[in-house]
Order: sequence, then C-alpha cells, then structure tokens
Amino acid sequence: KVLWTVLVTMLGYASSLPVGEDALCTAEDLAKYRIIFIGKWSQTAFPKQYPLYRPPAQWSSLLGVTHSSDYSMWKKNEYASNGVRDFAEKGEAWALMKEIEEAGEKIQSVHGIFSAPAIPSGTGQTSTELEAHPRHPLVSFVVRIVPSPDWFVGIDSLNLCEGGHWMDEVSVDLFPYDAGTDSGFTFSSPNFATIPQDTVTEITCSSPSHPANSFYYPKLKILPPIAQVTMVKLKKSQPGLSAPFINLPAKSNEIIDTVS
Amino acid sequence: KVLWTVLVTMLGYASSLPVGEDALCTAEDLAKYRIIFIGKWSQTAFPKQYPLYRPPAQWSSLLGVTHSSDYSMWKKNEYASNGVRDFAEKGEAWALMKEIEEAGEKIQSVHGIFSAPAIPSGTGQTSTELEAHPRHPLVSFVVRIVPSPDWFVGIDSLNLCEGGHWMDEVSVDLFPYDAGTDSGFTFSSPNFATIPQDTVTEITCSSPSHPANSFYYPKLKILPPIAQVTMVKLKKSQPGLSAPFINLPAKSNEIIDTVS
Repeated sequence: KVLWTVLVTMLGYASSLPVGEDALCTAEDLAKYRIIFIGKWSQTAFPKQYPLYRPPAQWSSLLGVTHSSDYSMWKKNEYASNGVRDFAEKGEAWALMKEIEEAGEKIQSVHGIFSAPAIPSGTGQTSTELEAHPRHPLVSFVVRIVPSPDWFVGIDSLNLCEGGHWMDEVSVDLFPYDAGTDSGFTFSSPNFATIPQDTVTEITCSSPSHPANSFYYPKLKILPPIAQVTMVKLKKSQPGLSAPFINLPAKSNEIIDTVS
Repeated sequence: KVLWTVLVTMLGYASSLPVGEDALCTAEDLAKYRIIFIGKWSQTAFPKQYPLYRPPAQWSSLLGVTHSSDYSMWKKNEYASNGVRDFAEKGEAWALMKEIEEAGEKIQSVHGIFSAPAIPSGTGQTSTELEAHPRHPLVSFVVRIVPSPDWFVGIDSLNLCEGGHWMDEVSVDLFPYDAGTDSGFTFSSPNFATIPQDTVTEITCSSPSHPANSFYYPKLKILPPIAQVTMVKLKKSQPGLSAPFINLPAKSNEIIDTVS
C-alpha cells in the first residue's frame, strides 16, 4: 500500500512536469515579455509574384501561446491540427483558440494565449505582451502569410527559460512554412485541398522544387528571412505600458528602409 | 515649505485620479474580463452592396485599452486621432498602439492594451482577455469594417465599475461609425481623403442621407446591430484559460444560423 501511494505520487508529480528535458525551468516567478513581430516581406527581397492587389501582401493577426512540452501548437514534419489548418488557410482563429483552451483545461499544459494585431502590408510590425510560467516556459505562435494557400511563419516551442533563468532577450529570423493542407503553389492559387493531408514543411528557395512555386529562387542558397520576432523581458517594476517599444520607429512603414 | 509640500502632494494625488466622476471606482482589486466580439454582418441583415469578393466582408483585429477618463481612444462628434485614422482606414495598428503607449507613459491614464485576432468573415467571433484597474476602469476598443473607407465599430469609455463594484457581465450591441477621414460612400469606394477632416459620426439607415450609401435603408427605422460585444468577469480562482468561451459554439461559423 505504501508502494502504491509512492507510485501514484510519482505519477502525479511526473504528469505535472513537462515531459521534455529542455522544458524544465527552475526560475521562481512568472515572466513578462514584450513580443515584437517585424514583417520583412518586401517586393525587393521577394520579387517573384509579389502580391500587389486584392489583397496586397500582408500578415494576419499573430496568435500565440505559452505552454509546457505537453502541448504543441504546430511542429515541422508533423500534421497540422484542424485549428492550425483553419488559421493557415483562412486566418480563422477560433478553432485554434478552442484547441488551446482545451489543452489548458484538460492537461494544464497551457499558461496563456496572446495575440497581436494584423499588419496590412508585407513590411511593418506589430506587438503585444505575453506571460510565461516556470512550468509553461515555451512560446509558440503562428502568423498567416496573406495571400497564400496555407503558408505561415511562426515559432514552435521556443524555451524562454535557459539554465533556470528567464532569457533577457531573444530574436529569431522566420522563414515560410506550408501547413500541408492546401496544394496551391503560388500566393494567389485557388483553394485546392491536399488529400490526404501532408505534414508541415518548410518552404525554401529550392523546395517545393518547381519553377511555379512563389518562393522558388534557384539562384539563391537560402531565402532571406521573411519576418523576424524579438521577445524582450520586462522588468518587474515596469507596468505593462511602460514597456518600451524598444528603439522602434514611430511609424511602422519607416522600417522598410532599414530592412536589408 | 510645509504648504508647498502639501500642495505638491495634492497635485500629485489629483493628477493620479481620473477626472470624470463616472470614472471613480472604489473597487479594491484588479479585475479580469473575457471579451467576446461577435460579428453580425450577414448578407441577410445587410443585403445592400454586401461585399462578397476581394475582399469579402470581414473584421479587422480588435484593438482595445483599459484607461481612466484622462484618456480617450475615440469619441462621437470629435476628431479621430491619427492612430484611429490609420486603423479605421487601413487596419494599421501601430500608430494607435504608440498613442496609447504615450498616454500611458505621460499621464498614467492607461492600464493596458489588448487585442483579439481578426475575423475573416462578416459573421463569426473572436475573443481575448483584458485587465481593468480601479483607477483605469474604462474600456475602449475599435474594430475596422473590411472593406470600407474608414468605418469601424467600437466602444468608447465603457465603465466596468458601477457603484464601486466590478460588473459581472455586460453586453452591448454595436453600430457602424465613420471616422471622418475618408469620403468614400460605399464599402469598396476608392481612397478619397476628407479635407478638412470631419468628426467621428454614427452611420445610420438614414444618415448620410444619400441613396448611394451602403447603409442607407430608407424603409428601416434603425439598422440591425452589425456586431455585439460581451465582457464577462473572470473569477479570481480561474486562471486565464479556464475562463470558459461561455456557451459559444465550437466553430464560429455556426453562429450564422443563430443571428436573427
């Protein structure tokens, strides 16, 4: 009977901890971050089939979550959930929010959802705050590429807690992904469901290896980053809004000039 | 010297309080709310010139703020700020976020910004959480009507604190407003700046009084609500995600049938 109790206790303990080793975080407190998403999808950097009209190149709302390794929003080479499919194909966030909510309720694998406003042009920026928890130190998010069949950029399970400490700042270049649910080849391809569904794959300058593909640039070794995300830890004393929009220009259009 | 200290103290105290009487809130703690925005812009309810293609009828991201009466995001019969103009005309949120941030830094009139994902159809819903502070109990937000010249729906300075207590739930029907910055008459009118800028006005079934106007329905007394917002106070014990998406259907499209 004692053994049984110990076993149950261990199981309970184990199930409340993240599974992956990288998700163990010994930081004591919650951490708040400002997340800044910068679109770098310019006609200069991506001249091929650059969408100019109806709709012009732009970014959907950003939808993200802080979580433990028991939850996964999306993962390269795995199948996209229905929620990610709806978001990547149509920018429809509701199903994905429901999935996250259910993961939070059923297995306590989620700390919080966050979202940032859409960007109505290929270059520009948006921002919001997020909160991470020592048991939920991972960040994932998606932003739909508009127009596109089912293409998006995002982060999968980035750990904000390194060596038991919250990172002060992290900045990541982003590259396009295909959600594997629509077989369109170009930004403005008509809807054409992929049956059976394919896995999430990175789109590179050589893959899909077909000249019709909007990101096919056979002379490049790698695509330039199509976006960038920066997360900056907020000081305890800072209320949310004193969190600076750090060194960013007053108008988002000004960054067009600074994008290489 | 004592008098001087008292005066400075009083000034400091006075400037940290909201000016308007309606904004005085004696509730002690912060309050968290789930805000649910429901688009009711269906072709059945609004048949005239209903946008079906490129882009079809839809809603931008929701951008909101909790604040004191020292800050105003937008107000009927007053001029829209540059930030509201950019948002109402183009869905560009950055300038408005900067304005809110500056109001927060300079006069401590803002508690927090919140945003919810866009809705890629006229009917559908989106949701997020917001936090209100006893000194910042007012909620304002805007959602752009897409496509449109500079039309939006929103709330201006709704007080979540009534009689010293946080309201449990509040639900408001929303009607379209014209930001007064673009003279287009119909959903898909080309850009045509209003010079000099006009004030923010409500669009009704009879005003602007011109048959070409997309909301001109001379046989109606009032327009049906084009959207609805509900804010529900979250219990202290509820972590953010256990906040139910209260009685809402799993897929946002299902509400189309329930919209009268």
